[in-house]
Amino acid sequence: MQYSAIRKMAQMSSQAGIISFSAGAPSVETFPAEEILGVTSKVLAGESQCALQYGATLGHSGLIDAVMELCAERGLPGVRREEVAITGGSQQALDLLGRILVDPGDTVFFELPSYIGAISVFRNLQARMVGVRQADDGIEIEDLVARIRQIRGEGGRAKVIYLIPNFQNPSGVTLSPAKRRKLLEVADEYDLLLVEDDPYGEVYFDSSQPADLVPVKSFDLGGRVIYISTFSKILAPGLRTGWVVAAAPIIEKLDLAKQACDLCGSMLDQRIVAECWKQGIIQKHLPGIRVFYQAKCRAMLNALVDHMPAGIQWTRPAGGLFLWLSLPRHLDSGELLLECLESERVSYVIGQPFHVNGEGSHTMRLAFSRENEDNIALGVQRLARVFKSHPG
Amino acid sequence: MQYSAIRKMAQMSSQAGIISFSAGAPSVETFPAEEILGVTSKVLAGESQCALQYGATLGHSGLIDAVMELCAERGLPGVRREEVAITGGSQQALDLLGRILVDPGDTVFFELPSYIGAISVFRNLQARMVGVRQADDGIEIEDLVARIRQIRGEGGRAKVIYLIPNFQNPSGVTLSPAKRRKLLEVADEYDLLLVEDDPYGEVYFDSSQPADLVPVKSFDLGGRVIYISTFSKILAPGLRTGWVVAAAPIIEKLDLAKQACDLCGSMLDQRIVAECWKQGIIQKHLPGIRVFYQAKCRAMLNALVDHMPAGIQWTRPAGGLFLWLSLPRHLDSGELLLECLESERVSYVIGQPFHVNGEGSHTMRLAFSRENEDNIALGVQRLARVFKSHPG
Repeated sequence: MQYSAIRKMAQMSSQAGIISFSAGAPSVETFPAEEILGVTSKVLAGESQCALQYGATLGHSGLIDAVMELCAERGLPGVRREEVAITGGSQQALDLLGRILVDPGDTVFFELPSYIGAISVFRNLQARMVGVRQADDGIEIEDLVARIRQIRGEGGRAKVIYLIPNFQNPSGVTLSPAKRRKLLEVADEYDLLLVEDDPYGEVYFDSSQPADLVPVKSFDLGGRVIYISTFSKILAPGLRTGWVVAAAPIIEKLDLAKQACDLCGSMLDQRIVAECWKQGIIQKHLPGIRVFYQAKCRAMLNALVDHMPAGIQWTRPAGGLFLWLSLPRHLDSGELLLECLESERVSYVIGQPFHVNGEGSHTMRLAFSRENEDNIALGVQRLARVFKSHPG
Repeated sequence: MQYSAIRKMAQMSSQAGIISFSAGAPSVETFPAEEILGVTSKVLAGESQCALQYGATLGHSGLIDAVMELCAERGLPGVRREEVAITGGSQQALDLLGRILVDPGDTVFFELPSYIGAISVFRNLQARMVGVRQADDGIEIEDLVARIRQIRGEGGRAKVIYLIPNFQNPSGVTLSPAKRRKLLEVADEYDLLLVEDDPYGEVYFDSSQPADLVPVKSFDLGGRVIYISTFSKILAPGLRTGWVVAAAPIIEKLDLAKQACDLCGSMLDQRIVAECWKQGIIQKHLPGIRVFYQAKCRAMLNALVDHMPAGIQWTRPAGGLFLWLSLPRHLDSGELLLECLESERVSYVIGQPFHVNGEGSHTMRLAFSRENEDNIALGVQRLARVFKSHPG
């Protein structure tokens, strides 16, 4: 599996002394460790019997309350209790949804590029995976429609569109408001499910932006959008807590699948996260996270402008942890990575595995989440040195 | 799914005022809540950056160390690091193993009765499920061999034997030492994998017993036994921490499957459990757990002898949380359950869903884990009243 090769390369890249643009995890500096310690002590002192026992497969009810409130704040009001499932991070949500929604041979549409963890889930399920071009304002609707028609014309089952609308992993691209509505119309017209994966939506850099980030799910009257999110980027990923909002019959199926998968998630984690929300720790903490990543992103963008040779392009994210860089098409980011690691001690993730159609060998993901601003500038200079030494 | 029906019935049975022999969870009284609070504070004060961040898919290295030590104490010495995977409870171990070991149509052999959570995993994978008779000393080897030959004779793929050797859920039966060796010979002869699920092995009632409970895995030279266990019964299930010991190539496959499943488990849970082991909390706590369940089991066995009418049989567990009761064959435990709940306010779990061959409608599982000794005696009297009102 390519997914594993990526992870191994990421481990190699995390050696001491290497400036890492490959590490995709949120920065430990953003975790409110002290507040979590306080909350955890409270949970274990007051609710230890429940926190240490098996619990509901779909999650702790207090955390479901928190998710309903959080969704309302994101422009997704009126979510009902039976429309929510708590999962072991959003990765488990993807795995469970894949299992209940997709049969072998069903077609799933992905942005080019898309999230490796989702690609891996649907590949394991033997789905047919079809890539759709992405522009600066998100997935290209015409290309999507053309692909759907092609699959249907061939007698295939066009089943699911998987997409990350906000500050996408890996590209950093955000879907425009107009395209959000258009996308739902397409899903309606061709009777597709839409899996809307939103791990990064809260990590926006411009405070006027949230209105543009309203979930596609908020326009969904027919129950065809399945919204996924996580506390990994807004609290701490080690607590492994994500969630799904979907029509009640989908949540019922997910319940059955999850029972056989793990009986229930970590009750301690779920109660800690619920209490962090109840005490306002997450809410209070978010502005700081936004500023933290914004500064890093700006440092990377500035360094790219200052140092990159002509012929190299990159995205300009309005939030999140990543940006996407494209070399001239004749260059192979996989071949250059070894040189970057050995000569320049700087790492990135190669772009090809993010493409379900095998393209993207000249692309790469740069994460600005891990390094400080000085190292970001230094790392970009090093990358630029390697790229300049391979002219067109 | 029947599995879900069982769980719903279990919820119904947990109403206030009902004496519950259906609740299969360990008693909250056995959780060392105060010690866990202390350990958690230490972990979050000293290792918060790691405990709150993503971690290794196969688990925290300190917990892998603990599992290697624990296995050695159970008669499974020399386990190597690359032979261990930490999972989200043993249920996730079953789910992942099912996915990497079994293709649709492969045959999996189960004891009659067997654990519903395992049956559910293999049913979802569209395995062919074959039941094998169980005697007081465990699975009947002759019946197993006959079934394997039958499947092979039909051109089927006999792939996996799934079994719980110690104080089995649901029957309370323990596999004899002689049969442990014999079972491995059969697996060798017919080239089957053996999934040895051991959640209850530490919960023995007779301190001279451990020698008889040595894992089948300890005799395994060919790497065909996959050993599963969990901290759920010896620490706390809400911390969702189980493990697998298997040949390194199986663990490698499990790593890939788990990456797509959840990226990693709860790092906080894993570090808490590792620290509990390191501080000796689990070890110190085990004798008390054994005495705790032994007293409850004795209370139930005494009450059964005192009150049950002729024609009713039950197992006499030497450990664990459950015993198994068989009514005269013409009675249906499902039909009697409603009467038990409504008239006598006592619950159990019906036996049929534990049978992969559809038998067992006259059987039931009685858990002695939840109720105190007085309620156990009272509950058994109530059951006996119902059973007496339905003579042969």
